[in-house]
Amino acid sequence: MNDQRVERVLARLADKGLSQALICDPLSIWYLTGYYTQPFERFFALYLTSREDQPQATMFCNRLFPSAGDCCENIVLFSDTDNPVPLVAAACDPSSALGVDKDLAARWLLPLMDAGAAAGFVLASDAADDTRSIKDDAEKDLMREASRINDEAMKWLAAQVREGVTEEEIASGLLGEYRRLGAQDHSFSPIVSFGANAADPHHEPDQTVFHKGDMVLFDVGCKYQWYCSDMTRTFFTAEPTAHQLEVYETVRRANEAAEAIVKPGVTFAEIDLTARRIIEEAGYGEYFTHRLGHQIGLVDHEPGDVSATHDEPVQVGQIFSIEPGIYLPNDVGVRIEDLVIVTEDGCEVLNHYPHEVCVLEV
Amino acid sequence: MNDQRVERVLARLADKGLSQALICDPLSIWYLTGYYTQPFERFFALYLTSREDQPQATMFCNRLFPSAGDCCENIVLFSDTDNPVPLVAAACDPSSALGVDKDLAARWLLPLMDAGAAAGFVLASDAADDTRSIKDDAEKDLMREASRINDEAMKWLAAQVREGVTEEEIASGLLGEYRRLGAQDHSFSPIVSFGANAADPHHEPDQTVFHKGDMVLFDVGCKYQWYCSDMTRTFFTAEPTAHQLEVYETVRRANEAAEAIVKPGVTFAEIDLTARRIIEEAGYGEYFTHRLGHQIGLVDHEPGDVSATHDEPVQVGQIFSIEPGIYLPNDVGVRIEDLVIVTEDGCEVLNHYPHEVCVLEV
Repeated sequence: MNDQRVERVLARLADKGLSQALICDPLSIWYLTGYYTQPFERFFALYLTSREDQPQATMFCNRLFPSAGDCCENIVLFSDTDNPVPLVAAACDPSSALGVDKDLAARWLLPLMDAGAAAGFVLASDAADDTRSIKDDAEKDLMREASRINDEAMKWLAAQVREGVTEEEIASGLLGEYRRLGAQDHSFSPIVSFGANAADPHHEPDQTVFHKGDMVLFDVGCKYQWYCSDMTRTFFTAEPTAHQLEVYETVRRANEAAEAIVKPGVTFAEIDLTARRIIEEAGYGEYFTHRLGHQIGLVDHEPGDVSATHDEPVQVGQIFSIEPGIYLPNDVGVRIEDLVIVTEDGCEVLNHYPHEVCVLEV
Repeated sequence: MNDQRVERVLARLADKGLSQALICDPLSIWYLTGYYTQPFERFFALYLTSREDQPQATMFCNRLFPSAGDCCENIVLFSDTDNPVPLVAAACDPSSALGVDKDLAARWLLPLMDAGAAAGFVLASDAADDTRSIKDDAEKDLMREASRINDEAMKWLAAQVREGVTEEEIASGLLGEYRRLGAQDHSFSPIVSFGANAADPHHEPDQTVFHKGDMVLFDVGCKYQWYCSDMTRTFFTAEPTAHQLEVYETVRRANEAAEAIVKPGVTFAEIDLTARRIIEEAGYGEYFTHRLGHQIGLVDHEPGDVSATHDEPVQVGQIFSIEPGIYLPNDVGVRIEDLVIVTEDGCEVLNHYPHEVCVLEV
């Protein structure tokens, strides 16, 4: 159990007027207890309460899963033939509202309601999400290492570009390289785009063959001890045309201007607008078709995006991507993405692979 | 849209006293409409109603997904910045109860309740699950083909067994073989177990090296045009000992006795007990540690298992596995599994790979 993290979640619940909650996101449970399992359709939850006469955290876990007893002192085990609903209802305070996880399935929520487990049911998983959003020192170190590995992997990717190679060939070799570098897995399915394919921001690697002169975009990330990296670079493989160069440098300026203004108190929306304005002023506004970035940690996309509609200020310890792009259909696609940690007086950029125009020798 | 299937779901809803329901399982939506997407955290649902003045089916779909307009005449599209809850609430009849999918997440269910979308909320996805359980002729043909491919793949697997090969090597080559045979994917992660590893029914293929004399268990399945196969065979690689032979023949008799009694009206529990009794009478009852089987179709494990606690009679068109096993820790593991379709007067066994003792030449 990580009692400090549990205290932080309980404090956020108290801010919402809640004294109890049911956390179901397996990664939030791991974050709070150190125990991970993927329960699929089976019930698995961590009940948190601020009532004085109760343990703060009680885990509800099917016996099928390897024992969680080492991680959680208070644990209620049950079998496939048991109904967990009365067990959970017995732990809840029926006279107070219960915060529930946004992912709690109707198969459990409706029976808990029928059992009168609580005086009301309120979405409250942002208490855990907002806690996860502020990384502590150990988490920052893991995020730095995941991005360091990603920087190294980008060198490997750039070296794979050669006449005749397919997007899929490069993409399928990346996991081996990540493992050689000490990571455990991808943090998301890698994007490898040649030529005009890069103008689709979510292009999936396919049998497209590389030919010298194609621009090449890599958007990749790994998992290192549970924590995710995510970076994009776009390469040339022949001297860029003036048009390509203008697109590239506009994206680069947008990325760097956004990174330069990050500090506590600046809003997510202001960061998005800083990048967006540069792209708009260059005449490409309609071709920057997505938000500037997303928070990241135990999963690649965590709640709280860097977008025009998110007007909360950023806080010390938050980590998010800055990834402006310009996508000209059937022509050019450029994106440059780094992760940043908000610090007391600015931000620390986690990726050190250069932004400057790079023409690969192929 | 498959109007016949929609009618069948609406009839099952009516049996429960429901005139409207929200289906969320992406495969049930595919089954009813021909449109598939994996929405992750985004809202995606098919609203069904038996009200005369309304279309029977209305799809709610994020614009991000490729258009579903070809599959569903009535479609409500929305963007990431729109809240789908009022759109769904507007379609619902607030004076009647709404059947909801067991997988509907609290993030949608609680706001639908707050919006007063219906007079009550009742778990009702079994109306879709029970409809999916009875396969029509086209589905049976796809299930037959998936199992025919699986029979062929079993020949390939048997041919891979040689001194020094690892479980993982054989398992990792299977997808290529499935594709050569015309399937698209695994239906589940393949089980390849050498020697005593087979005594763990869910052993995952690892670096275990094959040595002549090891028994070898393969439990594998493919997907063919959405439909799943699933079969297990256990091989010898040296003349079996009397003990091994006794275990093997007990499992074989249990499999064949269970398959022999399947016909409409016999209960799932009776089928399970037929196999279980043979294993118990041979003295191995405590080593048959799982249910006899599971229904199968668009996913490998569909609701409605073949177990002692499921006392409903089987129905024509249902497809399920018959997979008795005996697992003697650190010694021997044997399982023999086929899929069967219930017919008017018995069942059709979909797997034709022999059950008889087979000593591979390695």
